[in-house]
This record gives sequence, C-alpha cells and structure tokens, in this order.
Amino acid sequence: MNNFTYLNPVKVVFGKDTIEQLTDLIPNTENILMVYGGGSIKKNGVYDQVNSALKNHKVYEFSGVEPNPTYETCMNAVEYVKKHKINFILAVGGGSVLDAVKFIAAATKVINKDPWGILTGEVKIEAALPLGSVLTLPATGSEMNCNSVISKKATDEKLAFSNPLVYPVFSIVDPQTNYSLPLRQTINGIVDSYVHVMEQYMISNDNTPLQDRQAEAIIQTLIEIAPTVLSEPENYDARANLCWCATQALNGLISCGVVTDWSTHGIGHELTAFYGIDHAQSLSVVMPRLWNNQREIKKDKLIQYGRRIFGITSKNSNEVINEAIAKTEEFFRSCGVKTKLSEYNVDSAEAADKISRRFKERNLNIGEKGQITPEDVKDILSKC
Amino acid sequence: MNNFTYLNPVKVVFGKDTIEQLTDLIPNTENILMVYGGGSIKKNGVYDQVNSALKNHKVYEFSGVEPNPTYETCMNAVEYVKKHKINFILAVGGGSVLDAVKFIAAATKVINKDPWGILTGEVKIEAALPLGSVLTLPATGSEMNCNSVISKKATDEKLAFSNPLVYPVFSIVDPQTNYSLPLRQTINGIVDSYVHVMEQYMISNDNTPLQDRQAEAIIQTLIEIAPTVLSEPENYDARANLCWCATQALNGLISCGVVTDWSTHGIGHELTAFYGIDHAQSLSVVMPRLWNNQREIKKDKLIQYGRRIFGITSKNSNEVINEAIAKTEEFFRSCGVKTKLSEYNVDSAEAADKISRRFKERNLNIGEKGQITPEDVKDILSKC
Repeated sequence: MNNFTYLNPVKVVFGKDTIEQLTDLIPNTENILMVYGGGSIKKNGVYDQVNSALKNHKVYEFSGVEPNPTYETCMNAVEYVKKHKINFILAVGGGSVLDAVKFIAAATKVINKDPWGILTGEVKIEAALPLGSVLTLPATGSEMNCNSVISKKATDEKLAFSNPLVYPVFSIVDPQTNYSLPLRQTINGIVDSYVHVMEQYMISNDNTPLQDRQAEAIIQTLIEIAPTVLSEPENYDARANLCWCATQALNGLISCGVVTDWSTHGIGHELTAFYGIDHAQSLSVVMPRLWNNQREIKKDKLIQYGRRIFGITSKNSNEVINEAIAKTEEFFRSCGVKTKLSEYNVDSAEAADKISRRFKERNLNIGEKGQITPEDVKDILSKC
Repeated sequence: MNNFTYLNPVKVVFGKDTIEQLTDLIPNTENILMVYGGGSIKKNGVYDQVNSALKNHKVYEFSGVEPNPTYETCMNAVEYVKKHKINFILAVGGGSVLDAVKFIAAATKVINKDPWGILTGEVKIEAALPLGSVLTLPATGSEMNCNSVISKKATDEKLAFSNPLVYPVFSIVDPQTNYSLPLRQTINGIVDSYVHVMEQYMISNDNTPLQDRQAEAIIQTLIEIAPTVLSEPENYDARANLCWCATQALNGLISCGVVTDWSTHGIGHELTAFYGIDHAQSLSVVMPRLWNNQREIKKDKLIQYGRRIFGITSKNSNEVINEAIAKTEEFFRSCGVKTKLSEYNVDSAEAADKISRRFKERNLNIGEKGQITPEDVKDILSKC
C-alpha cells in the first residue's frame, strides 16, 4: 500500500425531503447565487423546494449550464458573481452544474490572469468562494469530491482540475429528485459510476485488499440494482442505493493508497470534445478495448475482477479475461447504452487518427505507469 | 435506506515514516500536551520521533493513561491542561489514549459541573480543545471518529459519549509503529475491528446493499490478512491493511442509513467493568451467544453473512446460521482469543446475575429495536 493522506470535508445530507435543510445549511447573511442547467428543476419541483427553503435568504440565479459545462458559460457566471457581490454559490443539478460551480468559485478569485489556466495548470488556485449543492443526478460523484471537468468551445478541449478549495461545504442528495430523470441520464449515471470505480481498481497489484473489495462492493451493488432502477424509476430504495454508489465511487476513498489509471477518461473526454458523445457513453465505448489492449499489465486484477464480480470459474487466464471484458460490455448494453462508435455514427478509424494525433501533439502518455502511448490510443480507438 | 448526514472531517495521514509530518500539522504557536500510556512508545521509538518532529514546538507531557482510561486519570490531566494553558492535545498511543484525550479536550471546557456528566448525558459539550493523534495500535477506530469510552473506578462504570467537537483534527497512522505490539494487543485489534463492523451490519434488513458489502469487505479482508499479521509481525502490507480495516470499521461510513445494534458492546463493557476482561476479549465472548439469542430478528442478515463470508451452501436456514456463528467463534479462536468466560476464570452464572441486574436497575433494554431485555442479557451471559 502506498502512503496517502485522506481528508474529505463534505457534509452529505442524504435522504427523503432533505432539501428543506438548506434553510440552516447556508447562513442567511450570504448573497447566494443559485446555478442550474436547462430548467428541468423547474419541472420536477426542485426549483420550488430550493426557493422555499431559502425564502429568507438573498438569492440570485444563473441558469443555462450545459451538460458538458463550458468555460465560456462559466466566465459569464464569474462576471455575474462579481457584479452582485455573491459570497456563496449553490449548484442545483447534476455533475455538470457542480463542476461549473467549482470552476466559477475558483475563477472568481483569479486576478489578472485567464482562469482557463486553472485547467491547463498555469494558474494556481489560491482561494475560492464557498459552495454547496443540491444533487439531482447521481453519476459523477462531484457532490463529494473536489474535481471538475470543463470544456472550451473555442478549442474543442475538455480538461479537468482538482483542488481542496472547491470541496462543497455540503451536498444534499434526495433520491426522490431522480424519479423524473430521462432514462438516458439514469443509464449514464450507472455507467459513469461503474467506470469511476474501475479507473481506481483496474490496476496492477498494490496489495490493497480492502480498497479492492470496497470497489467491488460498489460494482456488485450497481449490477444488482440496475435492473430495478431502470424498470421502476420511482423505487426509492433503488434510487437511493444508486445515489450512494455514485457518491462512493468518486469521493477518494477507494483510491487511498492506490495507483489509479484514468486513461479511459482521458480518451473518452476526447470523444466527447470532438463528437459530442455523452461522457458515460464515451467511457463504455473505450473501457472494454482499453482493457484488452492493457491485458498484460492489468492481468491479475482483470482475473480477480472476473472471478469475484462475475463468478467466472475457468482456469485459463486468457479465457477469464476475455469473459470479464465481454461481461462488462454486456452489462453496459443490458443497461441500454451503446458500446460501439459506429452506433454513434462515428468512424472509428477517423477518431483513432484524430485523437491519437492530439495525444502525440501534447506529447502525452497515459496509464498507471505512463505506459499507454499515442500508438496504443490509436489501436484502442480503431477497435471501438 | 434511512436518511442520514455524513461528515467526517478527520485528516488521516497514513503510511511509512509519516510521524515527521507532525511538524507542519500543528502550528508551532500552540502549547501542546502530549498524552500517552504506559511508556511503550519510549521503547519502540515513537516517543523520540514525535519529539523530533516537534522540537521547535512547546510540548508538555502527561503519561499513565490506562488501557481502559479512567475518569480519575483524565481529571488529573484536565487540571494539568488548565495549569499550563494547553491549547492542543496530542494523543500518542492506541484507542485508550485517544478516548482519554477526547474526554480531556471536552472536560477542560466544562464549567461549574462535574464532567462525568458528559458520559451520563447530564452535561452537554459546548466546546473542546483541538486534538490530534499518532496512532500506534489499530483497533478502536477512535483515530477517525468522535466517540470515546471512559471508565469510572469509583463505581465500576464504563460509559461512552460521542460528539463532533472531539473529532481529531488529524490522525497519523504509521503501520511500522505496530511491529513491536504485544501479540495480545494485535489479536485484540483484529477482534475489536471485526465486532465493530458486525454491530453495524448484523441487523434486520434496511435495504442498504452497498453498506452491507462495504462491511463485508472489511470482514473478508480481516479474515484474509489475520494469519499473516499474526505470524509475520513486521510484514508492512499486512500491518497497513489491518490499520486501514480498523479505521474503516468505525469511521461512520458503514453505518450511513443503517440502524445499528451495539448490544454486544453494551454487555461486553460490563464484563470489562466488573471483571477486567480486555475489551476485545469481552466482545468475542458475548457476540456468538448474542447472535444465537437473536437469531430470529437477525435471521436474514445471519444467512447473508454465512453465505457471503464463509461460503456456507446449506439450504437449511438454521444450519446456515449455526455454522455462521460457529465459524465466527472459530475465527476468533484461530487468532488466539479465548471465547468462553470460564477461560477467563469468570463464573458465567454469576456474571449473568450481576450484569442483568444492572441492566434491570437502569431499566435498560438494548438491541436494534430495544428488544433485548435484561432477561435476554441473563440468558446470553449464562451461555458465555
């Protein structure tokens, strides 16, 4: 096990009818900016619940955050924040709104520099506005971590940053708010959570048996609850269990002492940036082929995964790995997600060329040991 | 799943040679009181490491905290804290030292009342000194929770309190400090962690499949690593994995949304108070008989546990439960802990009388639904 430091200061308020707790979670001396997306929260009652809880607070609004939140939109929000002397930002929505709010909170405090530098690493975050969230879509785990992914329209870029200053002070998770989610978003949430776990689990052995099993616990639960979540959208316990899986998948716990490997995300982000494929869809396309490409270095973990998650009993290592990869893709498809680029009308040869070239230009190897070269990226994508 | 709020603000600094990080973890403007137990930290080098890291800090010392820390000793420390205007307390040792420090931190701030009231519930904690820890014994999870158990010599009482104001600011866990632990303490740590998990797991069904599996993850890991920990005391990974299991067993995570049942602890504490049996030993004596007594209400979970942890395949529910209980006791005994009162020279009939009478006097039912009566306690103990 590697040395690590673990600190997660987010207060998670979880359960039925918890949005009303907002009243006490934000001091009513603050100028609050409520940030949301396309307006679904006005249809499902969440907007009204938030406003009712904050009826004695000073609340401003900023809407229109996109599914893959853009730098351009966020910078409009930053201007608004400065103009209205906002001192608390409340994200109401899914991971995209949360990611946007994290960037806005940090970008507001950047002086005399382009805040895009937060994403490229050229600007160091020295301060951020406090933020909280009301989560309406379980998927990214953004409610309990300090990560954010922002896209830049101008350059088709999608980059991530992580900083302890943008941990939400609190996140309210009321699974009832998920009842009205479009099926596609629920599916994406399941796949996204699944892949988040795998990026922290499917690595060469670190001798971290507890973290391995904590990861498997999430995967086993996702597989178990997915059919109910998808067939009974108003099943509270199924929704609640999915929410908790999504949060646990990316709150830093299962990566304690572990080398992680975010290469499926690294490649997937490019598919989203170039072709507009949903984040989760891009992951379900890339991961099975990436594992196949990396089957030697990830051999032991792939076998452990196949045996423990799918109960594969074959004694032949290659057979176990093949079946583990196949069963993973099968699970994604059983949830209703497409796992081939052709199904998204994307030519895999073209995508392989385009994206591997970008990795080459950036001189970027990925993978747990930096072992995945642009050539590997090309090979992986050409088989997607 | 029940509603819950989860917030754990402890910074865990985990791994090899991490004690030196103390230098930066405590501002050197503080008057620090270093609290420890019987002096083993002077033999294993931890005392020197702490002092070296704090060589530019103002450090006072208070030693002599007992294995089951007493109110009487803690109150001497409180006097010392006030006299020397201490404003940060550092626990160096195991759970007992940590528990003592939590009580001292809170008791110091109690004005015009007897701080024992913190334990009985008569005194509300309004403030506490900040505290941190260097953990040298994995067992109680006290390094990442806000619980404390204190004994009162004068009345043979052992009571617990829990308050967010006594979360450690940080806890340093260097598994290397465990190399020199007496075997008995290592064994106790394994058993203690195991039972902590079970008190949050072995309940009637709450539909919390992820929490169940997170609990099982700890149990499976404990069973897997115990032989190595016990036979190779200087195996770093085995020690590290035990440390992380112990921390995860009682940091509040697996009890999110779950009804817990601390009745094994409730009865075990009395065995310690009356007969001086080690905490973990008392738990290993009580739990198997308590499960047997409660086999109806805990039926589903006992079966799940038997099947998932021990792979019991029988189709007869009673057989699965009997075997699950037997295998649990077998695991404890394989670690070298005695599981019968007679092995501790305690007469079970006498203990049953004495302790059930105390529950009766306090008019105290225990168990997840308050279903365990003093008569049940008598039955359970008479079979120990």
